[in-house]
Amino acid sequence: MKKVKVYVTLRESVLDPQGSAVMGSLHKMGYGEVADVRIGKYLELVIEDSERDVDALVNELCHRLLANTVIEDYRYEIEEVVSQ
Amino acid sequence: MKKVKVYVTLRESVLDPQGSAVMGSLHKMGYGEVADVRIGKYLELVIEDSERDVDALVNELCHRLLANTVIEDYRYEIEEVVSQ
Repeated sequence: MKKVKVYVTLRESVLDPQGSAVMGSLHKMGYGEVADVRIGKYLELVIEDSERDVDALVNELCHRLLANTVIEDYRYEIEEVVSQ
Repeated sequence: MKKVKVYVTLRESVLDPQGSAVMGSLHKMGYGEVADVRIGKYLELVIEDSERDVDALVNELCHRLLANTVIEDYRYEIEEVVSQ
């Protein structure tokens, strides 16, 4: 069994209105030292062992559903789950 | 200048309907080996150097705005930004 941590972020060139809104709020709250905020998604998947290669599988999941690769980048980490 | 990566996740005991929906979609798409999906937020903050301690500042930001600590946990990593 594998635990996969996926980070989906907007590409550098894409505006992040959600991040801008959070930064605006932080500034109004007095945190002027916050110079930039970008917001993305963080997903934790648990994947059962199968005959499929996990790397290939995760890339397929990201391309088909988890990320919009036109405007988003993704990266991931795979951890082996040690059964208790 | 510091770059802070913040990961906000639902607490273990809290239901994650968004994650369940994604898992349901993955199952319908034929990815039955996906046993669990949890979805959280990933934030990248850029923070200017100031007299405030960055650790204390980030904890304050998370408690006051970025995370709802009743139902969410957060963790963060601080990186020094090397100016080009």
